[in-house]
Amino acid sequence: MDRRFVYLDYNATTPLHPEVKAEMIADLELYANASSMHEAGRRARARIEKARSSVARLIGAPDPACVYFTSGGSESNNTVFGTMYDLGRRGRVDEAKSHAGRRQKIITTAIEHPCVLNAARRLADEGFPVVFLGVDAQGRVDFAELERELDPERSRGGPALLVSVMAANNEIGTLEDIPAIARLAKAAGAFVHTDATQAAGKIPIDVESWGVDYLTLSCHKIYGPKGIGALYVRKTAPIEPLIRGGHQEKGVRAGTYNNLGIYGFGKAAELALAELPSYASRVAALRERLRAGIVERIPSVHVNGHPTKVLPNTLNVSFPGAEGEAILLSLDLEGIEVSTGSACASGSLEPSHVLMATGVGPELAHGSIRFSLGRDTTEADIDYVLERLPPIIARLRRMSTVPASLSATT
Amino acid sequence: MDRRFVYLDYNATTPLHPEVKAEMIADLELYANASSMHEAGRRARARIEKARSSVARLIGAPDPACVYFTSGGSESNNTVFGTMYDLGRRGRVDEAKSHAGRRQKIITTAIEHPCVLNAARRLADEGFPVVFLGVDAQGRVDFAELERELDPERSRGGPALLVSVMAANNEIGTLEDIPAIARLAKAAGAFVHTDATQAAGKIPIDVESWGVDYLTLSCHKIYGPKGIGALYVRKTAPIEPLIRGGHQEKGVRAGTYNNLGIYGFGKAAELALAELPSYASRVAALRERLRAGIVERIPSVHVNGHPTKVLPNTLNVSFPGAEGEAILLSLDLEGIEVSTGSACASGSLEPSHVLMATGVGPELAHGSIRFSLGRDTTEADIDYVLERLPPIIARLRRMSTVPASLSATT
Repeated sequence: MDRRFVYLDYNATTPLHPEVKAEMIADLELYANASSMHEAGRRARARIEKARSSVARLIGAPDPACVYFTSGGSESNNTVFGTMYDLGRRGRVDEAKSHAGRRQKIITTAIEHPCVLNAARRLADEGFPVVFLGVDAQGRVDFAELERELDPERSRGGPALLVSVMAANNEIGTLEDIPAIARLAKAAGAFVHTDATQAAGKIPIDVESWGVDYLTLSCHKIYGPKGIGALYVRKTAPIEPLIRGGHQEKGVRAGTYNNLGIYGFGKAAELALAELPSYASRVAALRERLRAGIVERIPSVHVNGHPTKVLPNTLNVSFPGAEGEAILLSLDLEGIEVSTGSACASGSLEPSHVLMATGVGPELAHGSIRFSLGRDTTEADIDYVLERLPPIIARLRRMSTVPASLSATT
Repeated sequence: MDRRFVYLDYNATTPLHPEVKAEMIADLELYANASSMHEAGRRARARIEKARSSVARLIGAPDPACVYFTSGGSESNNTVFGTMYDLGRRGRVDEAKSHAGRRQKIITTAIEHPCVLNAARRLADEGFPVVFLGVDAQGRVDFAELERELDPERSRGGPALLVSVMAANNEIGTLEDIPAIARLAKAAGAFVHTDATQAAGKIPIDVESWGVDYLTLSCHKIYGPKGIGALYVRKTAPIEPLIRGGHQEKGVRAGTYNNLGIYGFGKAAELALAELPSYASRVAALRERLRAGIVERIPSVHVNGHPTKVLPNTLNVSFPGAEGEAILLSLDLEGIEVSTGSACASGSLEPSHVLMATGVGPELAHGSIRFSLGRDTTEADIDYVLERLPPIIARLRRMSTVPASLSATT
């Protein structure tokens, strides 16, 4: 096949959906400050409320007022952890009407996105008891450990204040059982947060049946613009601003409304919801074509993550004996864009914290590649990868000192 | 004159500069995650660094690495105050290499934007000594009070940790003498922050001669997109992330790069710097035409702010005997868009905190209108306002119970 450009890094970010792009170009004129009282301001504001309803529909939130716009997933996650900081500190606990006692314990997982991990570590630095739950070899949360950590009689740190578990892992695509986790957490009196940044647009989301108090969304993962995200906050859950100032977003998030980002988010959410069924079946078939082709053509590979409880678009594969970054750069020369681990952790020499948590060991973790497919991916793209990848792996393995068979399984 | 649309709310927000718009439309395709290692990611990243250099040039920062991108002015300001929280707390003070002792005192002014006021109030809630300096009748900081508050022998709260004074006021346009304020603050060992959100693009900014440690910028005030801003941090000044997570912006600000916003900001900064001299002389002449016309045609008005040390585009006028919101809505019906106070405080029934701080009294504060001019404002726009405004004021004054002459001066 002729050289082509194949973008398989949709979990890092997505291009704009053509309809989002068209809407954004049309909206470049709608510049008024949505807090202004004059007509242009009121018109800008009405459009924002329309977008809020679209985002609410994407996640099954009956009341759009529970959706707050932020600058992205990292800000949404940090806002939740900042709220827990306010709630859990001595002297402030009594202000949290929903929580009696001095709840401070934070339960999250070892495979969260760096922004949750670092927000949780910050609370640990402040003296909060923080637990990072382990996962099994497929990346699923250990329920026995969760139940133990939720029980103050069987674990340290007192009753839990928050349980935060991502809906879908960004690196390996494994889906967590959020409804079951939320049931356990709520029974123990904790608030429940899920980072649904990678889940949105790829699997159905329903805040009601999931039973979460907080849910994080990012727009640029669903074919919308960057720099805009949202936080769902259940009406009964407390929320404190991370960015203080003007009265925007009912005082929960100050700063002039990002009209263009919000309009693009509304359109992207609307499209993501409408296209979900066709998207999911299409990319799942392409993913399977890629997986089967790799396993057939390349010896000693290890497919990371869960075989079925997985995002339809994500395939994470370890190629023992070849180094992930070298594979990435070799594929890049062929016009194929993938990632090792996540973009947010790139530049780091550490092996993926997600793969390490699944127990694959550093060799496999260092030799892993994340293929993340999207709505523009074609069969020809997959076939091109299946043509160019095997000789790259063979060449790198010849150059390597690590035996290809090391701890590898197919 | 025929009815026309006259936007005079440029301090609330600005439309996109046509060249920024053209660049953003062209850039809608550059979607790659700027943290990704592949070629598209590296290309996206290179464009971000080019934009960073343009923003650095706008504020005279010799090293672009001192510029951090944020989601806007509110986030930048909150990041500075969050850093002060970390520095000033017991147990953490020793970590701040630049500051000996337990410096906690925050000195700011009564006329700051709500995001600085509320970030400062948050520190006050946490037990930090916080002082809001008064201003004179023209909105200039009281230097005698500043000197006293910087002297631990003559004031309470110990030595100052931070002095934060805005470069230009958003409501009345008054310019503060930042270089002089910074000299006093540095002599007392305090860090210096200025919110230059309203100053940027309207007056020259030079972080070196100003001598500030931190400077806040917002892109949507300089004819660029919303949802993007920057924080300048002097190399010797500490900075702590508000949004924790990935390693973006050297760990100071996590979250996927907002490519489009950053590219737009770079272009807007470049244009703002290039067009500043012609912009400033043009809008200053239009502002004077508006001021002289209002004073000539409407009896008993009061021009707020400083007569000469003022943003070239901002004219704040009180019309005693007429209520600000009623004037705004009446002008809106004529197609003229202005604001009372600031957009970020709209919806509040309180009189402007800025005008109250200048001592004009609640009647004048309630009857004030901010006209903020911009690069698209024409003489015909001004003449249209001068035609439509006088009958509105006369009508509202007839309906009012407050005498028009009350505490009014021209």
